[in-house]
Amino acid sequence: MAEPQRKKWSENYPRWFDWVIGEAEVYDYGRYPVKGMGVWMPYGFQLRKKIIGLMREILDRLGHEEVLFPLLIPEDLLRRESEHVKGFEAEVYWVTHGGRRPLDVKLALRPTSETSITYMETFWIKSYKQLPKKYYQVVSIFRYETKATRPMIRLREVTTFKEAHTVHSNFEDAERQVLEAVEAYKEFFDRLAIPYVISRRPEWDKFAGALYTIAFDTVMPDGRKLQIGTVHNLGQNFTKAFDFRIQLADESLDHPWQTSYGISDRVVATVISLHGDDRGLVLPPNVAPIQVVIVPIPAKDEEDMKLVKELVEQVRRALETAGIRVKVDEREEMRPGAKFYYWELRGVPVRIEIGAKEAREGVLTIHRRDTLEKRTIPAENVVVEVRRLFDEIYQNLYERAWKYLRERIKRTADLEEAKEWVENRRGVVEVPWCGREECALKLEEELGAEAMGTPWPFEKAEGEVCPVCGRKAITWMRYSKSY
Amino acid sequence: MAEPQRKKWSENYPRWFDWVIGEAEVYDYGRYPVKGMGVWMPYGFQLRKKIIGLMREILDRLGHEEVLFPLLIPEDLLRRESEHVKGFEAEVYWVTHGGRRPLDVKLALRPTSETSITYMETFWIKSYKQLPKKYYQVVSIFRYETKATRPMIRLREVTTFKEAHTVHSNFEDAERQVLEAVEAYKEFFDRLAIPYVISRRPEWDKFAGALYTIAFDTVMPDGRKLQIGTVHNLGQNFTKAFDFRIQLADESLDHPWQTSYGISDRVVATVISLHGDDRGLVLPPNVAPIQVVIVPIPAKDEEDMKLVKELVEQVRRALETAGIRVKVDEREEMRPGAKFYYWELRGVPVRIEIGAKEAREGVLTIHRRDTLEKRTIPAENVVVEVRRLFDEIYQNLYERAWKYLRERIKRTADLEEAKEWVENRRGVVEVPWCGREECALKLEEELGAEAMGTPWPFEKAEGEVCPVCGRKAITWMRYSKSY
Repeated sequence: MAEPQRKKWSENYPRWFDWVIGEAEVYDYGRYPVKGMGVWMPYGFQLRKKIIGLMREILDRLGHEEVLFPLLIPEDLLRRESEHVKGFEAEVYWVTHGGRRPLDVKLALRPTSETSITYMETFWIKSYKQLPKKYYQVVSIFRYETKATRPMIRLREVTTFKEAHTVHSNFEDAERQVLEAVEAYKEFFDRLAIPYVISRRPEWDKFAGALYTIAFDTVMPDGRKLQIGTVHNLGQNFTKAFDFRIQLADESLDHPWQTSYGISDRVVATVISLHGDDRGLVLPPNVAPIQVVIVPIPAKDEEDMKLVKELVEQVRRALETAGIRVKVDEREEMRPGAKFYYWELRGVPVRIEIGAKEAREGVLTIHRRDTLEKRTIPAENVVVEVRRLFDEIYQNLYERAWKYLRERIKRTADLEEAKEWVENRRGVVEVPWCGREECALKLEEELGAEAMGTPWPFEKAEGEVCPVCGRKAITWMRYSKSY
Repeated sequence: MAEPQRKKWSENYPRWFDWVIGEAEVYDYGRYPVKGMGVWMPYGFQLRKKIIGLMREILDRLGHEEVLFPLLIPEDLLRRESEHVKGFEAEVYWVTHGGRRPLDVKLALRPTSETSITYMETFWIKSYKQLPKKYYQVVSIFRYETKATRPMIRLREVTTFKEAHTVHSNFEDAERQVLEAVEAYKEFFDRLAIPYVISRRPEWDKFAGALYTIAFDTVMPDGRKLQIGTVHNLGQNFTKAFDFRIQLADESLDHPWQTSYGISDRVVATVISLHGDDRGLVLPPNVAPIQVVIVPIPAKDEEDMKLVKELVEQVRRALETAGIRVKVDEREEMRPGAKFYYWELRGVPVRIEIGAKEAREGVLTIHRRDTLEKRTIPAENVVVEVRRLFDEIYQNLYERAWKYLRERIKRTADLEEAKEWVENRRGVVEVPWCGREECALKLEEELGAEAMGTPWPFEKAEGEVCPVCGRKAITWMRYSKSY
């Protein structure tokens, strides 16, 4: 399989990313006059919609119910769970005025919705018989980030926050739900051909208010780690804080157990970043807003042109009937070469060129975006060939993205090697760990990297010692430069 | 056609509405601890989604492109068009703090998006060749209402605001767009079987910043008028305020023309209110989250029960294959009668009952929600019969809703009659009007009703005189008690 052309992509990834989201009309960033907030443009909106659609399909199939909660959370509600508010209060936007009047109670723009959802669950859920209950919503969340903002990656308005919230009668069922959520996210990322590392976040970096947090991370083209999904076992922390009790099977009353899990705009950023190349986007066929573009090649001869038009129409109809998202680029003012460039930039997986030669011979020139390879196929086979090509493109994206990630994970007990690895932004390094926070924090400093957490599921570090304190290592701690 | 049972519905409509949205699990209102904000529950969310889907289908077909703009609008952007800000500033929510820090610039929660969209259009649109351009988004908007809030009808967070924004090279094309928008909304409301009156809002009640506003109103079960859609010709007001210029065909630079048009959560409220009855929701089949519910009737005989299960499964499969949204209610702890009640409350258009008798004879008992009529059909005809029933239900809802509205519009030059009409909350009254604001305002006071505007398209009031000043009447002015 041909390797993609990735000079600009690899040498200056952040700049490439800014270029591609602007040029391909995905997301307008940096011109809207509020820092950390951008605009989803029509093409980007459709890509985002397809990706959210995939998430909805998976969650709905697993019995989640979609809801929509208010954006504004009154201050006292947000403060109910003390660890939670500590984690968020530095970055909450506050509404203080309605019209010219100061409000009696300050209202937070939701940074996440555990508090408002738990509050309403106290009215809705009374008995273990209603459980498990799984809600989700897709909403904007707001965080007054003090770190440098990045389009789709570190925003002050995260416009695509899918947050799921579940309720369970006991700890074991919440644990089962964590596993279900992890499997759901694996399927989601797999179908987007996005590779991931799953870690249990260290105690000091878990979600504010959770018992523990499982995180999905990936490595971006510049070797930095990006968190792309999290799953939290919330225990009874919120149900106790809201005194949310239900009747159990033995007729006693108790606080139920909860989990929550989320993904964000970052998924779209990752699809763009991991699969793209110097020519622009390379989209997996299942989420490409346009899956096939047909470019008619003008013929001088009138009779030829008629044949071209007929074949174009025939191919378009065949693909549409098969449920494939197809577009014919008939713009007259633009030359074929410019159209090729235009659709390659936008990552359309398959291009079909039809000129006089093709029309006369009843064949098509078919071009795949990922490898830029071209070949000729009989026109009557177009649906089968395009479907086969979609599979091949997906397989190729999946394999090359996973290969990229695997090459960026290094397991070593040698601190020099570990340091060199993260310093050169080569990705994630795994170092033996004794389990003590102080050792991990010390190593964070020494490596100039962030402790991402330990492998999930748990892995023993047999025969290894903690390079900081020399004690027996229990497991591995992952470190990386991170977004 | 049987008339619906509507005692509770007609005698105390507001209470009926609160009851039905709660009992049918559409929208939880009044318990969320911020006034004027409620929660879309799973069933209501699906209904809302289907209704938005219908709107999207129509707008997409007409060449609108969906986008997503930030929620927060900086104060100076909102203030750029002076009439616009005057119209909204009393009811804008302001974000003043990020974390513990006061913000440099106050940020408004969008009350509508003309300002932010026009601002970005200045970057995106440079030439008449790109026009017309039609954008839309479906977002939450916020208005600090001082009037009494009502669920879905007068909210402080309007969660389902579909706002379209278009750009044109000249006045005529903007006028053409107004017509297109009106036709689009007609189709939308027609497909929801919602009747409407179209008025040109009086000068003093047009959208803040518009040249003029065309409004769709309907009459609710209590005789009050509800605005359900508006279309604005914005002229060059915003493009001038933002100094947004484009190149025209003659190479000169000029400010383009704009329109905008919106619908909101109120559409869902209207579908619920106009079609419902004392038993609950009555949903038009095209937007019902569940179109057919199958209730198996338990049989004592084991052999019979096996036959019932087989027929249930066969019917479910046939309907699903035909693309019909079907649910089998297999709950064991609930009796058939309770299930009937449960699904009637939720407005499922068609119920199919299958017991031992039906299973043995290969027939189905089929029940329609709108008229509560039951009949028996051969099981093998189920798809055809259900589809026919959908058509009949839609026709019935459409006709009875339009009949209701037509009976609530009175044209009269007699002020006593007009007064009696609105006082008894019988709907809309049309009175001859000379065209002078002072006469309309005086009549508003006298009638205790609001001037809704004049008929659109324009209608002459031949030979009539203004009942206030005695001058020759130009057209009719509509008055009503309104939400």
